[in-house]
Amino acid sequence: MVSLEQKASEWSGVDPKDAVAIDEINLFEKLGLQTFINLSTNFYNRVYGDEEEWFRSIFSNSNKEEAIRNQYEFFVQRMGGPNLYSQRKGHTALIGRHRTFPVTHKAAERWLHHMQQTLDSAADVDEDSKTKMINFFRHTAFFLVAGVELKNQNKGTGCKNCSHQH
Amino acid sequence: MVSLEQKASEWSGVDPKDAVAIDEINLFEKLGLQTFINLSTNFYNRVYGDEEEWFRSIFSNSNKEEAIRNQYEFFVQRMGGPNLYSQRKGHTALIGRHRTFPVTHKAAERWLHHMQQTLDSAADVDEDSKTKMINFFRHTAFFLVAGVELKNQNKGTGCKNCSHQH
Repeated sequence: MVSLEQKASEWSGVDPKDAVAIDEINLFEKLGLQTFINLSTNFYNRVYGDEEEWFRSIFSNSNKEEAIRNQYEFFVQRMGGPNLYSQRKGHTALIGRHRTFPVTHKAAERWLHHMQQTLDSAADVDEDSKTKMINFFRHTAFFLVAGVELKNQNKGTGCKNCSHQH
Repeated sequence: MVSLEQKASEWSGVDPKDAVAIDEINLFEKLGLQTFINLSTNFYNRVYGDEEEWFRSIFSNSNKEEAIRNQYEFFVQRMGGPNLYSQRKGHTALIGRHRTFPVTHKAAERWLHHMQQTLDSAADVDEDSKTKMINFFRHTAFFLVAGVELKNQNKGTGCKNCSHQH
């Protein structure tokens, strides 16, 4: 069986070692909380203002302020800071928590497009940190595509014997 | 919609604040790596030797040494130590990684029974740390029950119109 990690590596083009290069230094200590708040705020401003309605609509049932906080608290927790996310919400459970979102290859690429723009505009973040983060984000995005795809394989996809759709 | 956290709290009987009391101190620094290795080794010795075949068989397709390592690396990562699990395997993704296991209420209680026995036998671990950990484990076990239950709700459960099972 091909693992989620293997699929994530193949689809993202990011080597597993590069995906966890965020752990080579403590990015939270290097960049500070405000940088992560700014990144997530900037990112979701782009997402909620996306001219592509199909992508924007994925977030239409989510509260923007909550989305921003969920994201920067997860980033802080994963990149060497305090467990802000788990303290407030419990396990990060990335796949489980994305179960209601249509995380397709196309959506992953659009997500990454906005995150790349966000990083490009962050003048206070050094290039090495940006590289480490985008590799992590890219690998993670396709890890979620793989996870959601598995979930959908468990769904009834129609009855071969009677042509009913379920 | 009732969240996974709410279900976990209700079913486990553990208050969310008690579930994350593991973050009040750094348990990895307090207890050290070897303690976590010992706990997971002791735990899986009990699991793989369980007289209850229905529970033991849940793990029959898993390698015991790998199960031990996965568990203590996750514990270390979650309880204040280095990101050993993510460095080796990627995201912890608790719900996603348990998707192939039948995580029922009964299985959660059996898992917790063995973990309680494991902690009871750990003479080198102080009572406060044990309390913090068992609350975390109990909440987490039922968080997974809730997560897996959601997954199963997405499965085709048979065709109402033609009586075929899918």
